[in-house]
Amino acid sequence: MDERYRERLAGASEAAGEAGLSALLVTPSADLRYLVAYDPPPLERLTCLVIRPGRDPVLIVPELERPLAEEHVPAGLAEIRGWRETEDPYAAAAAVVGKAERLGVSDQMWAAHLLRIQRAVRPGGTGLASPVLGPLRAVKDDQELEVLRRSARVADEAFHRIVEERLEGLTEREVAGRLGDLLLETGAERVEFTIVGSGPNAASPHHEPGDRGVRAGDGIVLDFGGTVGGYYSDVSRTVAVAQPPEGFTEVYEVVAEAQERAVRAVRPGVPAEEVDRAARQVIEQAGYGDRFFHRTGHGIGLEVHEDPYIVAGNAEPLRPGMCFSVEPGIYLEGRFGVRIEDIVTVTEDGVARLNHAPRDLLVLR
Amino acid sequence: MDERYRERLAGASEAAGEAGLSALLVTPSADLRYLVAYDPPPLERLTCLVIRPGRDPVLIVPELERPLAEEHVPAGLAEIRGWRETEDPYAAAAAVVGKAERLGVSDQMWAAHLLRIQRAVRPGGTGLASPVLGPLRAVKDDQELEVLRRSARVADEAFHRIVEERLEGLTEREVAGRLGDLLLETGAERVEFTIVGSGPNAASPHHEPGDRGVRAGDGIVLDFGGTVGGYYSDVSRTVAVAQPPEGFTEVYEVVAEAQERAVRAVRPGVPAEEVDRAARQVIEQAGYGDRFFHRTGHGIGLEVHEDPYIVAGNAEPLRPGMCFSVEPGIYLEGRFGVRIEDIVTVTEDGVARLNHAPRDLLVLR
Repeated sequence: MDERYRERLAGASEAAGEAGLSALLVTPSADLRYLVAYDPPPLERLTCLVIRPGRDPVLIVPELERPLAEEHVPAGLAEIRGWRETEDPYAAAAAVVGKAERLGVSDQMWAAHLLRIQRAVRPGGTGLASPVLGPLRAVKDDQELEVLRRSARVADEAFHRIVEERLEGLTEREVAGRLGDLLLETGAERVEFTIVGSGPNAASPHHEPGDRGVRAGDGIVLDFGGTVGGYYSDVSRTVAVAQPPEGFTEVYEVVAEAQERAVRAVRPGVPAEEVDRAARQVIEQAGYGDRFFHRTGHGIGLEVHEDPYIVAGNAEPLRPGMCFSVEPGIYLEGRFGVRIEDIVTVTEDGVARLNHAPRDLLVLR
Repeated sequence: MDERYRERLAGASEAAGEAGLSALLVTPSADLRYLVAYDPPPLERLTCLVIRPGRDPVLIVPELERPLAEEHVPAGLAEIRGWRETEDPYAAAAAVVGKAERLGVSDQMWAAHLLRIQRAVRPGGTGLASPVLGPLRAVKDDQELEVLRRSARVADEAFHRIVEERLEGLTEREVAGRLGDLLLETGAERVEFTIVGSGPNAASPHHEPGDRGVRAGDGIVLDFGGTVGGYYSDVSRTVAVAQPPEGFTEVYEVVAEAQERAVRAVRPGVPAEEVDRAARQVIEQAGYGDRFFHRTGHGIGLEVHEDPYIVAGNAEPLRPGMCFSVEPGIYLEGRFGVRIEDIVTVTEDGVARLNHAPRDLLVLR
């Protein structure tokens, strides 16, 4: 286990050097979890990993959280330095960084930390960590793939169970609560999100489950995920209750076809945006181009949204081990919405889905 | 309700002008909740409220989340502008900001957003929002005070119930789970943290509940909180099981006295650091000065840590309506820890505690 983190830190240090960074500063986030297995909540007290190409990493922590850091960070992985409440943690960080031409900072570093670090370090320039860490995190190793597979299976199982239940008459909020319970029952350690959009509410892709009651003739978008071993699931299925609303089946078929084509477009070397284009073409040809107004997908791992983004403009070539969602949708305001989403992984010569919940239209009792 | 947000926005706009800011940019955070009642999770897609002194506020949101924003933000409070997936949201923000001498950004804005906004806007300088928004948020109005009082009562009730239970034999994790359940049963909408440090583990102030079983002769620090109406509770009590460990009672009395003195030091006009000093003096005089290695407290409201911080170096005078924790502690490595924490509010002529759980040493069965 420790060896894995040592390799990740070495990789990050090397990539930082190649990117011309004098130092890479990482505050609490998935980046920190990935690099040193430490996951404190982001707070106003500075916790910051300093990676300097060619030198040993240093983790700066509030003194009162030192026992916590020592418990989580594998022994010997990084030197842990505590700062006391009346000390200036930014001066401490600057002392470790030294003179810096160019600083890299984790994408989720708070402005409160970033501006104070800049003032203390006075670097020539500041850039984001994602060009350095994103490509490392985007390619999953076998252990990570196995955990992502388990995480996807848990979400699939929750879907299998929810469609066995009678949803008609429940509010969206109740269905969402039930989905959350099922995720936990089937093995998720945490429920991360449960979007339930019924009837016309499904036309809002990020709809918050509310008091609307599910009724016969509704389409329902279920889009949910949790974590297993820290790795996310994220699956969407659209089902109908009693009978599909008018025009629904045709739209469903278009989305299912778009999703299938996009998944089939995935293989090593293909630019990420090609996958988006494959889905979009099907939807445009069916005349719904302007009703598919989000990207086709996003990477997934220690975060629910991470590199690579499957979006027009991202020419980054896909590589084996990458994992991301493929989730085209069509949203007809005032009527219904349809989205179908699987997590897929790029294999040596193609693609494999991690989700296996049925993609044929289910009409619930 | 809407009037309240209108006043907050007007106050923020005025304070931004006085601080010499051309614009104040607020991404998802308690700042955004406070100003426009909107609370999406912070994500890689830019959601950003732009406040320009003397002009109407604009909320920039991903187009696919526009229905969500329109549902939450009181009608007419801010113009909502959506950006589509292939548009550049930073250019959109820059167009709203226009030419900017000095930009203010919310303290929790992600570096990924901040650096891109800076590149698009090219301001003369960038500062944090907290000098502008902190003083506004720190002074609670009557409605907020009432919610904070309810939130504190819920935490007190959870404490009353947990000490009625038999903790001996449970693991810390089980006690923490039970505390969480009790918070929900007594009226919290969400459990935010449940620190349970038993025996020597209590010497780590932010100890994570683990597999250690609670046994006779343990001191246990219970430090927990949830939210009610979005406002946090945060209370700590230290109890003993069967009988206090050796030397515990004396230390407990010192901490209780330090807490009492610090609370009594609270009144309008007193610098925040005076409250810290009042607690620290008692502990230093008892010879434990170096075993109290954290600040005495932090403001509380829509966040669990916010202005004002009760710490040496903060000369900010206390004002009526401020709410913060008073939580001195003594931590003896390898033996035990003691912390006693109440939320208090500054009244017109003194102080009132929001927590009323007993502060006398409880020895559980």
